[in-house]
Amino acid sequence: MMRIGMLTSGGDCQALNAAMRGVVKCISHSGEQVEFYGFLNGYKGLIYSNFRMLTSEDFSGILTRGGTILGSSRTPFKTIREPDENGLDKVEAMKQNYYKLQLDVLVVLGGNGSQKTANLLSEEGLHIVSLPKTIDNDLWGTDMNFGFQSAVDVATNAIDNIHTTADSHGRVFIVEVMGHRVGWLTLNAGMASGADIILIPEIPYDIDKVVEAIEAREKRGSRFTIMAVAEGAISKKDAKLSKKEYEEKLAKSPYSSVSYAIADKILKKTGREVRVTVPGHMQRGGAPDPYDRVFASRLGAEAGKLILKREYGFMVAYKNREIVKVPLSEVAGKLKYVSPDATIIKEAKMLGISFGD
Amino acid sequence: MMRIGMLTSGGDCQALNAAMRGVVKCISHSGEQVEFYGFLNGYKGLIYSNFRMLTSEDFSGILTRGGTILGSSRTPFKTIREPDENGLDKVEAMKQNYYKLQLDVLVVLGGNGSQKTANLLSEEGLHIVSLPKTIDNDLWGTDMNFGFQSAVDVATNAIDNIHTTADSHGRVFIVEVMGHRVGWLTLNAGMASGADIILIPEIPYDIDKVVEAIEAREKRGSRFTIMAVAEGAISKKDAKLSKKEYEEKLAKSPYSSVSYAIADKILKKTGREVRVTVPGHMQRGGAPDPYDRVFASRLGAEAGKLILKREYGFMVAYKNREIVKVPLSEVAGKLKYVSPDATIIKEAKMLGISFGD
Amino acid sequence: MMRIGMLTSGGDCQALNAAMRGVVKCISHSGEQVEFYGFLNGYKGLIYSNFRMLTSEDFSGILTRGGTILGSSRTPFKTIREPDENGLDKVEAMKQNYYKLQLDVLVVLGGNGSQKTANLLSEEGLHIVSLPKTIDNDLWGTDMNFGFQSAVDVATNAIDNIHTTADSHGRVFIVEVMGHRVGWLTLNAGMASGADIILIPEIPYDIDKVVEAIEAREKRGSRFTIMAVAEGAISKKDAKLSKKEYEEKLAKSPYSSVSYAIADKILKKTGREVRVTVPGHMQRGGAPDPYDRVFASRLGAEAGKLILKREYGFMVAYKNREIVKVPLSEVAGKLKYVSPDATIIKEAKMLGISFGD
Amino acid sequence: MMRIGMLTSGGDCQALNAAMRGVVKCISHSGEQVEFYGFLNGYKGLIYSNFRMLTSEDFSGILTRGGTILGSSRTPFKTIREPDENGLDKVEAMKQNYYKLQLDVLVVLGGNGSQKTANLLSEEGLHIVSLPKTIDNDLWGTDMNFGFQSAVDVATNAIDNIHTTADSHGRVFIVEVMGHRVGWLTLNAGMASGADIILIPEIPYDIDKVVEAIEAREKRGSRFTIMAVAEGAISKKDAKLSKKEYEEKLAKSPYSSVSYAIADKILKKTGREVRVTVPGHMQRGGAPDPYDRVFASRLGAEAGKLILKREYGFMVAYKNREIVKVPLSEVAGKLKYVSPDATIIKEAKMLGISFGD
Repeated sequence: MMRIGMLTSGGDCQALNAAMRGVVKCISHSGEQVEFYGFLNGYKGLIYSNFRMLTSEDFSGILTRGGTILGSSRTPFKTIREPDENGLDKVEAMKQNYYKLQLDVLVVLGGNGSQKTANLLSEEGLHIVSLPKTIDNDLWGTDMNFGFQSAVDVATNAIDNIHTTADSHGRVFIVEVMGHRVGWLTLNAGMASGADIILIPEIPYDIDKVVEAIEAREKRGSRFTIMAVAEGAISKKDAKLSKKEYEEKLAKSPYSSVSYAIADKILKKTGREVRVTVPGHMQRGGAPDPYDRVFASRLGAEAGKLILKREYGFMVAYKNREIVKVPLSEVAGKLKYVSPDATIIKEAKMLGISFGD
Repeated sequence: MMRIGMLTSGGDCQALNAAMRGVVKCISHSGEQVEFYGFLNGYKGLIYSNFRMLTSEDFSGILTRGGTILGSSRTPFKTIREPDENGLDKVEAMKQNYYKLQLDVLVVLGGNGSQKTANLLSEEGLHIVSLPKTIDNDLWGTDMNFGFQSAVDVATNAIDNIHTTADSHGRVFIVEVMGHRVGWLTLNAGMASGADIILIPEIPYDIDKVVEAIEAREKRGSRFTIMAVAEGAISKKDAKLSKKEYEEKLAKSPYSSVSYAIADKILKKTGREVRVTVPGHMQRGGAPDPYDRVFASRLGAEAGKLILKREYGFMVAYKNREIVKVPLSEVAGKLKYVSPDATIIKEAKMLGISFGD
Repeated sequence: MMRIGMLTSGGDCQALNAAMRGVVKCISHSGEQVEFYGFLNGYKGLIYSNFRMLTSEDFSGILTRGGTILGSSRTPFKTIREPDENGLDKVEAMKQNYYKLQLDVLVVLGGNGSQKTANLLSEEGLHIVSLPKTIDNDLWGTDMNFGFQSAVDVATNAIDNIHTTADSHGRVFIVEVMGHRVGWLTLNAGMASGADIILIPEIPYDIDKVVEAIEAREKRGSRFTIMAVAEGAISKKDAKLSKKEYEEKLAKSPYSSVSYAIADKILKKTGREVRVTVPGHMQRGGAPDPYDRVFASRLGAEAGKLILKREYGFMVAYKNREIVKVPLSEVAGKLKYVSPDATIIKEAKMLGISFGD
Repeated sequence: MMRIGMLTSGGDCQALNAAMRGVVKCISHSGEQVEFYGFLNGYKGLIYSNFRMLTSEDFSGILTRGGTILGSSRTPFKTIREPDENGLDKVEAMKQNYYKLQLDVLVVLGGNGSQKTANLLSEEGLHIVSLPKTIDNDLWGTDMNFGFQSAVDVATNAIDNIHTTADSHGRVFIVEVMGHRVGWLTLNAGMASGADIILIPEIPYDIDKVVEAIEAREKRGSRFTIMAVAEGAISKKDAKLSKKEYEEKLAKSPYSSVSYAIADKILKKTGREVRVTVPGHMQRGGAPDPYDRVFASRLGAEAGKLILKREYGFMVAYKNREIVKVPLSEVAGKLKYVSPDATIIKEAKMLGISFGD
């Protein structure tokens, strides 16, 4: 009898259920005797031993459903070594609960921070297999992860809707796309929806270049400009500040996000009123798209295969069109950024898109 | 030879193209000789004689397309009698351009303000036929108008996406739905998406009742609460202020919209962090849904029929499941509010929805 | 303690879950003590006492879900008085099971045939409240029913997709829309998607008129023609046959549906190859659209209100924009057809749509 | 001054417009003086010199639009060397028209057959750059092509809709997915929608294994089975026939497609009634999804880059996550099949999917 624990951790993301279904279907069809323990609300469930037994019923019909049947929460890696408000040693608690339930392996579905905690638990001796979940596509060690393409769909759809209005009314519109540190989501949604200007954290912008791009469009006869702006877009000037200085500057900012600050700068420089739309958490929710459903199912199946082979300490990943295993220690703590010299950036520029640089 | 002018005025709205196509198809199929003049960007096009001749080519393939091929703009009724920045008498200019082009009729697609201007022009002697366009569904004299159902779809979809995240993460979420003065859109999107609390301008809320509803849900075991809040939601206390006092209060508010103010109140009263999503202009854009396409086409056809019969001074409207004509003078300047005693409000309450009242 | 039975009967349809949720939410929020018994797979569940107790858990999250959590089946009214294969008297069995469970009322969600059985049970003395479910919109006594608008969406989307191909490749395309006896679905989906020719059972067509319409389009420069054809479309010649003669003719037909027969006639008369698409059961499935979710929820709430008032023997219905109760005896056995003289047909013709008549 | 011809050839496919827009945007933004000649309706436009000059206006707003603004047609490669009905040498005519217009290059967007013709023209000395278009994903030399992912979305959506009905009513459902020779589309749509049985041309099925899979599901308590069946699904027995024998057998078959034949076999063997849905041409139409829009834009930009560098005789392709050029001679005439031993097939089987083998 195998005992398999499972948890979903971090921000919401499409296809979490599809991936878990993949793991469970694969192991169930192998004929292996198995019990599944679902920890509720991320690592918290493991820390406080809050779980429920899962049956195949739980996984029926969830392939297409957004969210996670286990619930999730953010449990910052930064403070994982600190005791909780009652003095509980969280890492120790997780280990104890793992051993108490006599688990053979813990399956973790999570993004960057969650992978770091997964690696820590692996180093502490627990058997871990993890799956790469993030709408940001910023996980190191994998070309793709589930959630990303569905988030691109939502953000693209938001910009599409704005497009018809922009086209009818003229004006500059900003759609703020999720992504504090990396720009994959903004870049792809911007390209998919024909945005004219795309601002991402990795390519600091010069507001004068942005204004130039808007005015060049008008000279060519366009009535409107659509900007896809990442939450973490940053000006060239601000990019020169230290991380601490910039955080202090942001904290003092009267704007609820960078998009509003950029809108205000454009207004002041050109007199143009800029409309800002913030789809926000919409980008994390809703049903996974067919791409993510297939992809998450495949990752889940391969994670199941690793478990059946008792290969632990790995994240399943997608490299050069194959699903492979990557040691958790190689993944943890690294981010995959958009390179300003990436081919896709060059292609976007060939298409006439301005990055304000 | 008939000469027909056409313009789309006011905020963007789905199915404007479908409605215009309806008018043109109907008249073209009648066999009547006709020329169509499209004024660009709303009443501005009529004021400054900015127009282009329209052919049947222009109307091919636009049934399903959002926005308006004529462009639109807001031309406030309040200032329509005031001269423009060059001293031009706008009403006089519209009349002159109408007569100069020897128009037989001007077709106006617009919302509340645009209908007022349409009525003014009608009173000035121009031949007017208008169509009811608004995502707010607040036009007097018609049970329904095009744009509304498509906007309900977009707002519902936004709340649906938030729902999966709320379900997985627990927490209170606010989705701010368009509607400064009337709550039809928020009400319908909220009911369609299973929102737990709906706040609309017509039913001032008591923040303590809102908190009560959130806490009652938690006592019943729910991990989350979804609130659909209209842009114009107002507290009972604020509802007692004069319009001027309230506007001054809003102007001084540090919050970018009422939703953020409500979120903050909930935080202060209960310690619960509330996430706010603002789909904003997304609600006005994108393709019209099948309901609106059929409905706008039918309204367009009936407007065409009125024109062929030379019946002017009317808005086409939907009353008791028939498309009828309503004198512009009856429509202009009135709004159709949600009555707090409306059957649909009672039904929403029977379904367990709280209005915070 | 109230005991409420519930069943869903007949062909699949969107918003069945939303309607049941409405009933349950309304009654649960009333404070009344209540038990819900869900009969599985339509009347069969009542006949063979196949049911399960339903809790509020069962109704959580189903507002947006297609299908029915109770399952459904077709139990033809025609044979309801006949014993089953084991000699069981079906009507008697239903009555006995109703009384055995000490039900106070049975809630039936169904279409035309199911309403007839509901009426029969009501006449037999059972307490019945029914809800109007059908994608065909053919139920007598109600202006609208849930499922219809969602089915319009699916059929419209099918024609939309064909439209882009038709536009690129030229050619005549038929999309066969559900509806053996009534044409509401075909009419609305055809109008919503800009179909050029619409054939419905209520307006028998003349194939020469259909060909004329195709050729007239080509003379005007169109490369393609889109036809929305109801499953039950019928030629003028066939419409003169007796029902029995026509059924025999259909039974002998080599075509899998009337669309293929029409395609073949067009080919033979004009040499034009016609492509046929049959979305079929897709039109009954998928998530209900926002319109249907609001509408089904409201109907459910009003059904709940009737039950709380112990008013039995009614179908809840939508008349002149209010939800009302209609005696089952008035509804049973009647169909609501599209009148060839209906205003909407005239409007469709004004828009240049041919009905082949 | 560069003169660039462009044509779209073969069956309809999403993102043709996006790809052309990519080519045109890239070249226009390079500053190179250029004229674009659009040949209408595929190679026919080139053969009969049916073309129009294209301006940047033509490419505005088409990123998201299905179909092709140039029109398309199938011009079989098999007969390209044969004279047309008036004795015209088609290849010679294409060459003459190319030279008469003094074209520098011809851009061809097409699938397998169209690439063969493109290669022939290249061998004849014309400058060709081609782009890989097909919903089948069967083009040799490229890991991906535009159109495929959008077609997966449509087919998945079709099966999703059937799923809710299957779940409510029980029963076996077949959804027939496009693909006469290759199974990529069926495989991906089947996995994305949770199909239980997937039949593709590359893995001949044994009807007894199919029945076994259906019955195994029922034994495990499932009320329904969903089958995704490719148009070209073939039984093990038929797979042993020569191509000619099999074609003769198909020609004599009373079934309108293989799905109906399979449905009938299942009925005869088990008494189970099987419902068949054929979304057909819907899979080729509608708006491209965000994935295809980004991908087609990138391919278009890279094709533009090749043209600017005067590198001819290539198809742009996607290999190992980079867009590369592949000599047309390497691509022409080869198909990329699903290997029965492919990893994705193994993963699908791990997930419990039966291929009837």
